[in-house]
Amino acid sequence: MESILSELADFVGGRIIGNSKKVIRGAASFEDAIGNDITFAGDAGFLKKIEETGAGAVIVPLNFSESSKDLIQVNNPKVAFTKVLNLFYPPSVQVLGISPYAHLGSGFKCGRNVSIAPNTAIGDNVVIGDRVSIYPCSYIGDSVVIGDDVKIYSNVSVLERCMIGNRVIIHAGSVIGSDGFGFSSDGKKYYKIPHTGIVRIDDDVEIGACNTIDRATFGKTWICRGVKTDNLVHIAHNVKIGEDTLLIAQVAIGGSSSIGRHSIIAGQAAIADHVTIGDNVTVAGKAGVAKSVQDGEILSGVPAIPHKLWLKVQNIIPKLPDLRKKLLDMEKRLERMEKKNGETY
Amino acid sequence: MESILSELADFVGGRIIGNSKKVIRGAASFEDAIGNDITFAGDAGFLKKIEETGAGAVIVPLNFSESSKDLIQVNNPKVAFTKVLNLFYPPSVQVLGISPYAHLGSGFKCGRNVSIAPNTAIGDNVVIGDRVSIYPCSYIGDSVVIGDDVKIYSNVSVLERCMIGNRVIIHAGSVIGSDGFGFSSDGKKYYKIPHTGIVRIDDDVEIGACNTIDRATFGKTWICRGVKTDNLVHIAHNVKIGEDTLLIAQVAIGGSSSIGRHSIIAGQAAIADHVTIGDNVTVAGKAGVAKSVQDGEILSGVPAIPHKLWLKVQNIIPKLPDLRKKLLDMEKRLERMEKKNGETY
Amino acid sequence: MESILSELADFVGGRIIGNSKKVIRGAASFEDAIGNDITFAGDAGFLKKIEETGAGAVIVPLNFSESSKDLIQVNNPKVAFTKVLNLFYPPSVQVLGISPYAHLGSGFKCGRNVSIAPNTAIGDNVVIGDRVSIYPCSYIGDSVVIGDDVKIYSNVSVLERCMIGNRVIIHAGSVIGSDGFGFSSDGKKYYKIPHTGIVRIDDDVEIGACNTIDRATFGKTWICRGVKTDNLVHIAHNVKIGEDTLLIAQVAIGGSSSIGRHSIIAGQAAIADHVTIGDNVTVAGKAGVAKSVQDGEILSGVPAIPHKLWLKVQNIIPKLPDLRKKLLDMEKRLERMEKKNGETY
Repeated sequence: MESILSELADFVGGRIIGNSKKVIRGAASFEDAIGNDITFAGDAGFLKKIEETGAGAVIVPLNFSESSKDLIQVNNPKVAFTKVLNLFYPPSVQVLGISPYAHLGSGFKCGRNVSIAPNTAIGDNVVIGDRVSIYPCSYIGDSVVIGDDVKIYSNVSVLERCMIGNRVIIHAGSVIGSDGFGFSSDGKKYYKIPHTGIVRIDDDVEIGACNTIDRATFGKTWICRGVKTDNLVHIAHNVKIGEDTLLIAQVAIGGSSSIGRHSIIAGQAAIADHVTIGDNVTVAGKAGVAKSVQDGEILSGVPAIPHKLWLKVQNIIPKLPDLRKKLLDMEKRLERMEKKNGETY
Repeated sequence: MESILSELADFVGGRIIGNSKKVIRGAASFEDAIGNDITFAGDAGFLKKIEETGAGAVIVPLNFSESSKDLIQVNNPKVAFTKVLNLFYPPSVQVLGISPYAHLGSGFKCGRNVSIAPNTAIGDNVVIGDRVSIYPCSYIGDSVVIGDDVKIYSNVSVLERCMIGNRVIIHAGSVIGSDGFGFSSDGKKYYKIPHTGIVRIDDDVEIGACNTIDRATFGKTWICRGVKTDNLVHIAHNVKIGEDTLLIAQVAIGGSSSIGRHSIIAGQAAIADHVTIGDNVTVAGKAGVAKSVQDGEILSGVPAIPHKLWLKVQNIIPKLPDLRKKLLDMEKRLERMEKKNGETY
Repeated sequence: MESILSELADFVGGRIIGNSKKVIRGAASFEDAIGNDITFAGDAGFLKKIEETGAGAVIVPLNFSESSKDLIQVNNPKVAFTKVLNLFYPPSVQVLGISPYAHLGSGFKCGRNVSIAPNTAIGDNVVIGDRVSIYPCSYIGDSVVIGDDVKIYSNVSVLERCMIGNRVIIHAGSVIGSDGFGFSSDGKKYYKIPHTGIVRIDDDVEIGACNTIDRATFGKTWICRGVKTDNLVHIAHNVKIGEDTLLIAQVAIGGSSSIGRHSIIAGQAAIADHVTIGDNVTVAGKAGVAKSVQDGEILSGVPAIPHKLWLKVQNIIPKLPDLRKKLLDMEKRLERMEKKNGETY
């Protein structure tokens, strides 16, 4: 692909400082960009060394203009660069059709321009929309419904009756709709609770690699619009993840818990069962949340406490040996004083 | 399916309070049940609001009878309801036979009424029992032996020579029999230790989605009868998990460790290598256990300490900044007193 | 296989104490070895009870000779035993050829003596070397390049353009080349950043089961020669793992971080984004590292601190309730003294 700077500026709604006719042939990172590439410098650190990039043009913040490079000024350089990247490296739209080596169940309903790879298996009564792409060695269970423009990578399992919205991406190795971990016990043995519910994944969700999302006991486990999960994330039965919430790698969400909108649960954090997390919450990496959390809170630690308090605590933890020594030393001094003063205990 | 209340009461060994001829057509959660559904109220919280459920009948504890609803009194309402659920929603028993699109190795021995899906691959000399169901895109390695009534979901790998008992369920994406993580080192490079052992999974075990259970170096990694694992659980080589023990999501069990019977290892907890955990032990979520544990202990924290002590500690942790301030303040007061008293240090 | 002790001693560069003509027919663990098996005793614990093993011959350290068993003395008994094990239990070299039930894309280039199993799917323009073995239900994406003597187990996904070196082992269920978790945000919604890079895995790497290794945004995520990963490990985009480094089960490495050579990141530990870890570093299990780490450091805890300091801290943590009590008690004593001395606060 080839473009000129003025076209790219129009595309991202930015203003050009420099040569608007500059030809741009690629987009690359600050370090890797060369010649006719465009890159971005989003913060003071990169702006300071802007002359060091080999890029021919740089997307910069609105207030920045001092450079020998041709610039596009925008409000949010990273978002603008993401848009340019998608222009130069658009998601593959290769339409491969239905492979004769795909196995299709009965009652299959299928939109237009789909790509169903060899060695996929599609159950009975499956419905998929337009421009859906399913990679090899994936299994779509009976009565699954999939919207338009969905990409399901290889070795994915979407089990019976689950519902997938539009523009959803599911990365390789993920499992959607496994049974929840639910048993009742008489104190001796465990009885399996049937899981009659489903997983529902709404529009614009991206599920990372090797995620496990369990179906509900009754009703649905619900991944709302715009949620993004990283790799190896576990979502238990009957969970609801609110719109535009991020779950970073190896997070675990316990059964029947609910996470609000625009929240971030960082890597290896865990949310216990039956907990409600509000909107715009940030849970730090490795934190453990066992109680419900109000909107806007930032939490860290196990069990999780307000992040600011945690920062203070973490500052003290390595000083504990010294503090203990001081305490024991003060105790001796106190005893000595008491003796001198004739106190008796 | 349709039943009447007296039949259900007989089935679960309960006593009816109300209309024994009541027709029951489904089973659902307390919140979702309507009309001719049956549900359960297992604790004081639900019993208090029993009139709020739309269910026509409710399974309750023995001592509860005050309700306008038709009731079945039982000793353990949750277990009774689980049994009723299994009556209304029995595990699928569809017998699909062996798909012509399954790939079978030589020497395959197979019981009656099996379901082997398209795009499965069965190695050489595999033996499987009656009513076994294998979902698409799963691989059963050479010389694997599988009992009766086993369900293996999609994208599962059961590698060579592993042994699976009766009534075992393995959820999608799990790997049974990968090599253990074993290397010897001369200080410069690592030499792979061959793993000649197997994984043996006994009767009534349920393995969650995307588990990894490594084969033994020699002998067997052994998952005993009735064990249930949640998703993304890691079990290293030569581990033994005792009967009816639960491993919750993302737990890791280190090599050659042994867990007793009826224990619970909660989510994201880890058991180190070469550790012995007793019977009826509870390890809290996120705990790290590096030493052997006696029967009946309840542990929390990293490294794990008795849960009761941990509760006290966790209560103090957020107070550390205040305690430190108090300590430093007391030190000053002590110094002042010492000065006044003519002490010198 | 059958050998005599003098042949094995030559093979591992050791010296025989006892009968050099002793026939050896197998190799087994200290506990399991019987009759004509050989085993090893690597440390004082095993050496002390060497008469208890049923093995006919034992590999021991150079300075050990007091035993009724026939011995091979070597510098490193575990490494020598590993070599003997590989002699008795060599990796399978069965050459199965290309199954007619494998699906091959166009432009496939393939070395000699390969084994490509049924129900595998190979994309377009894939190049694989000699003696490569690919197990069932695995997918090799377009333009992937694979070296010689590589073993890819079942249900593995190696996605487009990734590069795999020689003598690499990838265990079942792993995903190589999923998109990194990269989004830009305007505060309202997230925009997916295309991931145009690859994963490059160098020679002699072993990847555990159900790993997820994300492709780089630009350039490469790089797993260097000799790296070994355990199961369920997550490696984010643009990470570099140095030569001969070990990542134990359930470790997570954040985006753009770099780990040095010969380091060990123990189970469930996490390395944050954009962090540089040196050579010969040890990060303890469950630790969380958020800052860069110098060569040779040993770290524990969340956030990670020097291991020796952590040991002291962990010793104090369970004593916090007592220390707090002591502090509050001392405060009272101090107050009493102050009162007596006529101090006023």
